[in-house]
Amino acid sequence: MSRRTKRWCLTIPMVALLAAQAPAQTPSLADRYAEPARRIIDAALGDSAAWGKVAELSDRFGHRFSGSESLERAIDWALARMSAEGLENVRGEPVMVPRWVRGEESAALVTPRAMPLPMLGLGGSVATPPEGITAPVLVVGSFDDLRSRGGEAHGRIVVYNVAFTSYGATVQYRTNGAVEAAKLGAVAALVRSVTPNSQRTPHTGALRYDSTVAAIPSAAITVEDALLLQRMQDRGEPIVVRLRMGARTLPDAQSRNVVAELRGRERPNEIVVMGGHIDSWDVGSGAMDDGGGVVVAWEAVRLLKQLGLRPRRTIRVVGWTNEENGLRGGTAYRDAHAAELDEHILAIESDGGVFAPRGFGFSGSDSARALLRDVVRLLSPLRADTLFSGGGGADIGPIMQRGVPGLGHVVDGSRYFWYHHTPADTPDKLDPREVGMNVAAMAIMAFVVADMPERLPR
Amino acid sequence: MSRRTKRWCLTIPMVALLAAQAPAQTPSLADRYAEPARRIIDAALGDSAAWGKVAELSDRFGHRFSGSESLERAIDWALARMSAEGLENVRGEPVMVPRWVRGEESAALVTPRAMPLPMLGLGGSVATPPEGITAPVLVVGSFDDLRSRGGEAHGRIVVYNVAFTSYGATVQYRTNGAVEAAKLGAVAALVRSVTPNSQRTPHTGALRYDSTVAAIPSAAITVEDALLLQRMQDRGEPIVVRLRMGARTLPDAQSRNVVAELRGRERPNEIVVMGGHIDSWDVGSGAMDDGGGVVVAWEAVRLLKQLGLRPRRTIRVVGWTNEENGLRGGTAYRDAHAAELDEHILAIESDGGVFAPRGFGFSGSDSARALLRDVVRLLSPLRADTLFSGGGGADIGPIMQRGVPGLGHVVDGSRYFWYHHTPADTPDKLDPREVGMNVAAMAIMAFVVADMPERLPR
Repeated sequence: MSRRTKRWCLTIPMVALLAAQAPAQTPSLADRYAEPARRIIDAALGDSAAWGKVAELSDRFGHRFSGSESLERAIDWALARMSAEGLENVRGEPVMVPRWVRGEESAALVTPRAMPLPMLGLGGSVATPPEGITAPVLVVGSFDDLRSRGGEAHGRIVVYNVAFTSYGATVQYRTNGAVEAAKLGAVAALVRSVTPNSQRTPHTGALRYDSTVAAIPSAAITVEDALLLQRMQDRGEPIVVRLRMGARTLPDAQSRNVVAELRGRERPNEIVVMGGHIDSWDVGSGAMDDGGGVVVAWEAVRLLKQLGLRPRRTIRVVGWTNEENGLRGGTAYRDAHAAELDEHILAIESDGGVFAPRGFGFSGSDSARALLRDVVRLLSPLRADTLFSGGGGADIGPIMQRGVPGLGHVVDGSRYFWYHHTPADTPDKLDPREVGMNVAAMAIMAFVVADMPERLPR
Repeated sequence: MSRRTKRWCLTIPMVALLAAQAPAQTPSLADRYAEPARRIIDAALGDSAAWGKVAELSDRFGHRFSGSESLERAIDWALARMSAEGLENVRGEPVMVPRWVRGEESAALVTPRAMPLPMLGLGGSVATPPEGITAPVLVVGSFDDLRSRGGEAHGRIVVYNVAFTSYGATVQYRTNGAVEAAKLGAVAALVRSVTPNSQRTPHTGALRYDSTVAAIPSAAITVEDALLLQRMQDRGEPIVVRLRMGARTLPDAQSRNVVAELRGRERPNEIVVMGGHIDSWDVGSGAMDDGGGVVVAWEAVRLLKQLGLRPRRTIRVVGWTNEENGLRGGTAYRDAHAAELDEHILAIESDGGVFAPRGFGFSGSDSARALLRDVVRLLSPLRADTLFSGGGGADIGPIMQRGVPGLGHVVDGSRYFWYHHTPADTPDKLDPREVGMNVAAMAIMAFVVADMPERLPR
């Protein structure tokens, strides 16, 4: 509310100033599109269809991990449903994806007392030998701490006990922990789950190996157990842990990017592309990450069609595959559509959960930003009228690198990392009304940019 | 803060009124004990010794389930530590406790798709046959709903999908769900975990059987999965679940109530008893439920001794055993101390977590309440100066029934049921400073009631 008040304070004098300079004032985009925006908001908040679609996707297929049958069945379902809804050019665009299989896995405290340690292997990790790795533990609080105790890491299982600050900062230990520990001769790496809140819940995610360093097995343990191991080490107690992981990397598998369109009525070859990733981790049902993101883009297009709002340009919805452990969908899209990337006006990604919307984050030129600043004013009834600086997403990253302006969908993020990459990523975490608000925000943004007479400048 | 301001507004005119009627005004308990209360608060907040003791108890022994070796080892440790600290009359008072063993257990969705259902069997449940029970599911939202659909329950697994309102209301489904379902011919009962917040976490707890009704196996499933089964039923999908439980009830085992004293300097036979329960469920490490409760009572007495504050009467700290699945410790205490119950001045129990203190809840006479209202004023620096109406605890229930006034320790309860009876009941959930505040609150309350010249009236 205070944000909106402040905006008006700033905007009114600017409008007055411009009016004094330009006798024939063109109406703003916010003025021109006020009526369709109202219709979109009313329709999107009129029922809980979007939430219902997230729930159906989650409930029917479960997780949608790259290489799994459940992912391909979910893609079949989405394509069939899009066709039945009358979307245009519905198709699955082929993508070969990596196929990592978790297998049986466990961790246990052996010394000073026997206790199972809830864990999830990190995606891409190598296995342990069948009998597991049983080794003494070294708990460290940072990479600097690890290096300063470098001599102690050899032959040990390194445990990174690093508190969550931001995802970007803390996820480094999940991504790079195995490599850094292996450089010092560690036999495995365990990382405190990347989350600000835990109910003894491990959070999985991808790791990175380096061809110049031995690949050691790596898994996430819970916040609670990382803290327990820290206290034991601080008390001077010797700690031994046993880690067993049966992970395997199989040959690449066939998957697809899910694609559907609302064709433009005047310039169909100019494209606003938007979506999220259709794949998920192999735990939970990926309702939040990123079923919700795919569905709000999909529902936005379906709603525009239902309301008879066919824009000047084409809006293309994409459910990219394999974001989580390969980004093959995003790169395959870039390659398959290389010839039309110059005609990609804007790429919009939703991959932060579909909680209460806040706005969009933009990466592009100042002249485009000025136009989008006008467009987001239409989202003030949703309290989503902030245009943040910088934004995009993993899946649209490859085409943004080729010059396509990128827009990241921004929502309230206070609980996202509570459930991220866990078995608790389920539809109940999302609120039907908030999901509807996000549909409206995506639909308005895509429609105006696809419909406005001027082409969004690069 | 506003609470304290209000109190002064009310108190000043009453004091003025009393002063007008009674020329020789005796100082209030709050005035008389202001100096020792300050010393207690300073000492309790001066370090994190109490939190450290909760952590050590939790980390060294893990859970402390009735009948387990870890419970008896934890009791040995507590008794030895109490003796080393110079507490008096340190002893384990024998109690025979039930011994229920969880065994291997699992639940899985079979139809409409295969998926494991995280679960915890309810304490006291019977087993399934070794091959498990595989049966269609009936989801109900209340006992009324169950009875109105009574004909559908026969041969089914009844799932209670009841949202958390208050613990007292919602726990009925965990406690009585098996009996009510069995009355209608159900073959097993699953209950949505009793919690307002879930990360796919099952919460265990006790159930009750009725000798006139068949004992059917019963377990808790997660909030997420109860909602999933509800959605599947609402969509008209047939649901089949397989439940396997290897639970057994073994012969009763030997346990002990942990007892130690600070003997009174003038009237040692008059007793203020206080404590929590030393046992826990067989998941997590019972840091919150109720390691913290035992430790704050224990640390309160240790602190009084350390400060040289020996009261007129005896303060006895008790770690009751087997609160969770039998209450044998509380009843054994009543029986072992039957001859001195008339000399029990007050019983204080802490079993709601040791989060930020709020005050105490009292069950006893109006004249006693008036005195305690004066005492809790000493807790205003802790913001714990509210005397609530009604209070006590499960362990002191048996002696309260024999006339002993009861005082329940009241703390902020907003997160207690997030972790209650789960693997996430670990020391990190407690804040060292808040634990110290609770030590101070318990020490001041016990010291003043044990020391004041007048005996707390019944």
